Amino acid sequence: MFKDGDASMKNLLGGKGANLAEMIKLDIPVPNGFIVTTEACTEYNSTGKKLSADMKKQIDQCIAELEATSGKKFGDSKNPLLVSVRSGARVSMPGMMDTVLNLGINDDAAAGLAKLAGGRFAYDSYRRFIMMFADVVIGVSKHKFEHEIHAYQESKGYSGDGDMTEDDWKTIVERFKAIYRADQGQDFPTDAKEQLYGAITAVFESWDNPRAFVYRRLNDIPYEWGTAVNVQQMVFGNMGDTSGSGVVFTRNAATGTNEMYGEYLMDAQGEDVVAGVRTPLPFEDLKKEMPAIYDEFVGHGKRLENHYKYMQDMEFTIEEGKLYVLQTRNGKCTAHAAIKIAADMVDEGVLTENEALLTVDPKALDQLLHPVFDPAGLAAAKLLGAALPASPGAAAGKVYFTADEAVAAHEKGERVILVRMETSPDDIMGMEVAKGILTAKGGMTSHAALVARQMGCCCVSGCEDIKFGNNSFTLGGETIKEGDYISLNGSTGNIYLGDVATIEAEIAGDFARFISWADKVPGRLGIRTNADNPKDSIIALEFGAEGIGLTRTEHMFFEPDRIPKMRKMILADTEAERRAALDELLPFQKNDFKGIYEVMESRPVTIRLLDPPLHEFMPTKEADFVQLAKDMGKSVDEVKSKALALHELNPMMGHRGCRLAVSYPEIAEMQTRAIIEAALEVKKAKGYDIKPEIMIPLVGDLKETKYVKEIVDNTAKALCEAAGVTLSYSVGTMIEIPRACIIADGIAEVAEFFSFGTNDLTQMTYGLSRDDAGRILKDYTEKNIYEGDPTAKLDVTGVGVLMDMAVQKGRAARPGLKIGICGEHGGDPYSIAFCHKVGLDYVSCSPFRVPIARLAAAQAALRNPKK
Amino acid sequence: MFKDGDASMKNLLGGKGANLAEMIKLDIPVPNGFIVTTEACTEYNSTGKKLSADMKKQIDQCIAELEATSGKKFGDSKNPLLVSVRSGARVSMPGMMDTVLNLGINDDAAAGLAKLAGGRFAYDSYRRFIMMFADVVIGVSKHKFEHEIHAYQESKGYSGDGDMTEDDWKTIVERFKAIYRADQGQDFPTDAKEQLYGAITAVFESWDNPRAFVYRRLNDIPYEWGTAVNVQQMVFGNMGDTSGSGVVFTRNAATGTNEMYGEYLMDAQGEDVVAGVRTPLPFEDLKKEMPAIYDEFVGHGKRLENHYKYMQDMEFTIEEGKLYVLQTRNGKCTAHAAIKIAADMVDEGVLTENEALLTVDPKALDQLLHPVFDPAGLAAAKLLGAALPASPGAAAGKVYFTADEAVAAHEKGERVILVRMETSPDDIMGMEVAKGILTAKGGMTSHAALVARQMGCCCVSGCEDIKFGNNSFTLGGETIKEGDYISLNGSTGNIYLGDVATIEAEIAGDFARFISWADKVPGRLGIRTNADNPKDSIIALEFGAEGIGLTRTEHMFFEPDRIPKMRKMILADTEAERRAALDELLPFQKNDFKGIYEVMESRPVTIRLLDPPLHEFMPTKEADFVQLAKDMGKSVDEVKSKALALHELNPMMGHRGCRLAVSYPEIAEMQTRAIIEAALEVKKAKGYDIKPEIMIPLVGDLKETKYVKEIVDNTAKALCEAAGVTLSYSVGTMIEIPRACIIADGIAEVAEFFSFGTNDLTQMTYGLSRDDAGRILKDYTEKNIYEGDPTAKLDVTGVGVLMDMAVQKGRAARPGLKIGICGEHGGDPYSIAFCHKVGLDYVSCSPFRVPIARLAAAQAALRNPKK
Repeated sequence: MFKDGDASMKNLLGGKGANLAEMIKLDIPVPNGFIVTTEACTEYNSTGKKLSADMKKQIDQCIAELEATSGKKFGDSKNPLLVSVRSGARVSMPGMMDTVLNLGINDDAAAGLAKLAGGRFAYDSYRRFIMMFADVVIGVSKHKFEHEIHAYQESKGYSGDGDMTEDDWKTIVERFKAIYRADQGQDFPTDAKEQLYGAITAVFESWDNPRAFVYRRLNDIPYEWGTAVNVQQMVFGNMGDTSGSGVVFTRNAATGTNEMYGEYLMDAQGEDVVAGVRTPLPFEDLKKEMPAIYDEFVGHGKRLENHYKYMQDMEFTIEEGKLYVLQTRNGKCTAHAAIKIAADMVDEGVLTENEALLTVDPKALDQLLHPVFDPAGLAAAKLLGAALPASPGAAAGKVYFTADEAVAAHEKGERVILVRMETSPDDIMGMEVAKGILTAKGGMTSHAALVARQMGCCCVSGCEDIKFGNNSFTLGGETIKEGDYISLNGSTGNIYLGDVATIEAEIAGDFARFISWADKVPGRLGIRTNADNPKDSIIALEFGAEGIGLTRTEHMFFEPDRIPKMRKMILADTEAERRAALDELLPFQKNDFKGIYEVMESRPVTIRLLDPPLHEFMPTKEADFVQLAKDMGKSVDEVKSKALALHELNPMMGHRGCRLAVSYPEIAEMQTRAIIEAALEVKKAKGYDIKPEIMIPLVGDLKETKYVKEIVDNTAKALCEAAGVTLSYSVGTMIEIPRACIIADGIAEVAEFFSFGTNDLTQMTYGLSRDDAGRILKDYTEKNIYEGDPTAKLDVTGVGVLMDMAVQKGRAARPGLKIGICGEHGGDPYSIAFCHKVGLDYVSCSPFRVPIARLAAAQAALRNPKK
Repeated sequence: MFKDGDASMKNLLGGKGANLAEMIKLDIPVPNGFIVTTEACTEYNSTGKKLSADMKKQIDQCIAELEATSGKKFGDSKNPLLVSVRSGARVSMPGMMDTVLNLGINDDAAAGLAKLAGGRFAYDSYRRFIMMFADVVIGVSKHKFEHEIHAYQESKGYSGDGDMTEDDWKTIVERFKAIYRADQGQDFPTDAKEQLYGAITAVFESWDNPRAFVYRRLNDIPYEWGTAVNVQQMVFGNMGDTSGSGVVFTRNAATGTNEMYGEYLMDAQGEDVVAGVRTPLPFEDLKKEMPAIYDEFVGHGKRLENHYKYMQDMEFTIEEGKLYVLQTRNGKCTAHAAIKIAADMVDEGVLTENEALLTVDPKALDQLLHPVFDPAGLAAAKLLGAALPASPGAAAGKVYFTADEAVAAHEKGERVILVRMETSPDDIMGMEVAKGILTAKGGMTSHAALVARQMGCCCVSGCEDIKFGNNSFTLGGETIKEGDYISLNGSTGNIYLGDVATIEAEIAGDFARFISWADKVPGRLGIRTNADNPKDSIIALEFGAEGIGLTRTEHMFFEPDRIPKMRKMILADTEAERRAALDELLPFQKNDFKGIYEVMESRPVTIRLLDPPLHEFMPTKEADFVQLAKDMGKSVDEVKSKALALHELNPMMGHRGCRLAVSYPEIAEMQTRAIIEAALEVKKAKGYDIKPEIMIPLVGDLKETKYVKEIVDNTAKALCEAAGVTLSYSVGTMIEIPRACIIADGIAEVAEFFSFGTNDLTQMTYGLSRDDAGRILKDYTEKNIYEGDPTAKLDVTGVGVLMDMAVQKGRAARPGLKIGICGEHGGDPYSIAFCHKVGLDYVSCSPFRVPIARLAAAQAALRNPKK
């Protein structure tokens, strides 16, 4: 029974039930009822999907208690007890699961109800129940019933429900029963308890419906949680002019303004308010119509808001002049509103700053950092399909299929959407000019997704349904040709036909104030950024980054003035040739680093040595091969055959990372030289205390780590000595291979810091290539195997165990070892919470996720304060 | 000093030193001396490669003691003490490291020696020492000295050393000193102690020489062991007619016959016997020449053989009628001889059967199971190059570059060597007919290597030096065209020009007797085989396999009558189409299983569900695409585009293994049906208790495992119920992904057995693709980073930790869980020892490695008996 619970019991009672129980504790007028717990749902799901005899017994006992407190009787012909049956998961999943109202009516009860409250009301309720029960519990299409009503009203010349009399509804009830009988081959169930068991079963089953499934996936809700079921005595807003129903937010959910905001209808049940059959009135009008009720409700609303310290989303019913609150829950609102409410509540003294930080979902901040679609335009747009929401934001533009065409179109002033099977570093130029990127392959951490997030450009990836044609593709039954408009929502994964208008995001004034609180939380993880150039570094600093956690040196080599030199280096036949090409690259790389140092000043800058397999730098076009052969004084065939020899079957596990430095120490030497010379020069010119952290990628072996560190140290020391300057540089490693975690104690003897590369670590731990994961993840999520995408949300059970092992072993060998994370997970709130828990020092993420990471890290520190 | 040690101290004293000490304990006449320990070597290597003051002090003390016991003095002009300085690692590395003899001579000592033993001897020894010291310790090329002697002898008209007089040698000594001075810019060192420090340093340094490096790699000797240095008083076999030197094996090392077998030379130092300047005499001749010495030596030899319970390889010197034993060590011999000796020693009562098992290196058995080159032919052949010894045996044949050409040539009766950049399942037909396979890419566990080992066909892989031309390749300066002969040694990795004759291996009678002892060792790991067809199963049974640990169902689909159906299945657009194609495949697969069951009778047969990425089954040739399109009633473009869509960037971590069963449950259903129906039919027909173990590959997640197991169980149970037969089938998983080890407790709740797939597990744990490892492993071994190839020798430090974790967690969740290994490591003795230690139940390897595994497992059980 409600009185036995409270708000702390959400896991067992579901959110809705716990809140009902809590309201009863607060003496808010709530119709009485009881809760079938989430545990019962779990039991139901794991024992052949049947209500056990024991469960039925407990339900019967609760009904008996409800009968006792209400003085009504279930299925009674004199004073019948009617109940609502509603789902209630731990967290609110609005509209996702099923509800049955007015349960308990049969012919007897309807007759009794008619005597008590009028026949029109009684039979209106009866027909509502039959339709809802048949639809929700049994699976008879509700269209059959709706069609019947329409046909009846048409035959009578009625304009709507308002014209229906008691007799009309009685006739409809009989016709509904006939429809049910025809469909099911048996009579509509008249036993109230059977109705109840059926409805409870239906709510349990609705946990498995596709909508609920998708909602859980989008919101990271585990399947195992299950739902509770709330059985509550019905109150009736449709008992005449002194009755009504309404839905109210205690603040404006769109803007955050401190005003009660909602709608109501007199002589109506709650579903009528939502359904839009009659146009509801603004809640403010109730002040004039029923001022006492209005004041009472506002009082309850304020009390509940102060109690929960959160904007409330409430439902109420007025039954013949008496107010009932049917539900309260924390209200969902836009990020903009959430921040304003949090700030206001701090000003109002309701929340402390730290409490306020906990009221905003870090992920929601994304809305404030990227463009969104104009809702009006979106409503009219045709949805072509959906795939992985790989990089947030909204974008519309003309479709182009190659980077070159994208660049050309961009130069003509067009907005471009780049559509590719998958992207490679060769496509970078096209990606840079694109408003949005759509790929047919690749998961949340494919090349396209990574680069797009880094650039803050919208991306939808892994759209397996795309069929490519000749300069066109088909999707959702439409053929889109080069130059046609499409629109992408990188936050939802939706793909629309045509040119949907976008609204640029704006950062409201409260945002800066709010996020600054996050930086004051003690013991909070440091927040760094992944940035490869001064532009990104500046954005990241503006967003609050405290340093750079990852500079990928390879991105620098793809610029048109560098790639030919890079290719010469790679295809060199001798060390001397290679060194000559490296000497040409050195000034470029050095200048890149100087630019970054000048932005970052005395903040730490972690620079990773060359990582990707060398074939990624090879030309794909004949003209480029010809030019390269000319440059190198070799034949085209020779150059092609050398390039071909670089091809690998599984490049992700091939000749890359520190393996390149082992094979070609001169590459690591050149990069170290660029890093250190740049640091020495900027230090001298500007006086900053430049702190380069040189990071060796892909280590998996102790001697390998030593070998590469020696190259770096020898080069760096020689340069510092020659300059006569002390530079506080350090040399550390990426931890991104399972073996590195296992032997982390050994590696920590050599490495001066660790940074988890959880993209690769996740790939290797799962044996799942992020570039090929698209199809697999689709099947796995559809079949309820993976709850989420492990490349986006850190896999605590598997990868997390290795990370924890690496932290423990690493710090055992080198106490105080600085450990960060620079994989994509560094910007994911769930993953950040885990990083906090295992004791990392900082997380590093793309510039556009820095504010999210700041908030998530603050929340983690508040929830798990360090001892 | 020798007297302070014994044979148990090999790790500290090195093998040679420990044996010298042991011989002194046994009262064998050994010249006295002392040992600089391996610890000193390690210290030397880790402290800047300098002899410390403390080390020198200890050396000086030992010299003083040696002077005291011998009555001679180091560098003395009256009675000079001369010593030999020899390396001595834990295990014998014959000829790999440096030796300096006659150390301690200078002008004074030579004069003293001349008085004692004649001037010719003294100055002969002196010139030997100068050359050896200058060459070994200082690095002056010995050719300069040899050239000087030749020129001198020519000018004198001498025919050789025999003509040289005391004065001649004196002149040579002076000229040698001049050569040294010219080369080094300083005089030859005259201080005996400085000579000694130099020689010890040189031996330490020789641990790093390339020969030693390669030898260690081939023999799995860790770099860290270091070498000891034996400093031993010289005795002289070159003091006239009653002196001499010899080398003797206590049994025949080639045949194993129980006869002393060796050579000697009178009036010669040991190096002369080996150098071949004069032709040595058979040891038997000594019986006539010096019968007492002969008898004394034979007595020592037998005593030592009985003491060490192993055939001994001994060196002796006779100095003026007195016998000295300079060295004894366990002799190296052919596998054939090793087995005969072991069997004989059991018959002689020297060894127990279990002791005998420990005397033979399991790896050596490989020689008995594969063809070898005729030594005469090999000596004449030109070595073109060397690469990875991927599958043992010797083969010669004509080169062909495609599978089709290989098949055509085979049909014409030619012996074929298939040469490919790398192989794919498409090449299977060509590989089946080839005598040997050579690839330019791929490591020890590449496709080529795996298939070749499975087939027992010789393979050399990862020959990066190969440059492909137009129907030809170049290697070692030669261009080999299609149809030219080459010869491959898959046991060494050597590649020869021309058609080298091979000798088919023969299994001697003792072999069966010997290996049968291995099966009697209590607590020994079970030995299963990896076999995909009845032929392999028969071979494996003959070799002693107790069951099948891995049947790869995919290999069955590559046969010409099946692959078109497989392709139809893969490219099906709908589940119905796919099921139709699967129905066509079912009878084939069922027949395959029946064939295997009929061979294996009631032994367990583990069958793995479809594992490889589907693109491996796709055609590569236009004609095949056209045929396939015709079969499927689709356009060629459509079929090609579907095939292309299967392409993955990293197929090893892509849509394969149980992921296929998740996407297409109907494939797992068909395979289960084939496995179970075949079992039911053979059980019914033959009465065997067929025990199919159905193995789900590549699991990494609990729900994934459940999902696939349910498909298998539902199908299997339905079939058994329909047949009304109880079948003792079980369903387990491969453990081949790091995450599976981490969550092994969860997986064991579902899986009924585990089998480690250490090929994949090693790949993922290292992030190192076996197909792309060739170049990386080459650089890593050359740079002394990896001691061995982790894909061949189990990485105990990394992969082993995960395995141990999986065993512990798996058995915690399911006590008594049966755990095996079916990766390539299952046939590697070192890895088998580890598998025994962590408590596996069985290892499974290719049929040709079964005898090796039986012996290795027996040895592991003898060395680490289960408590």
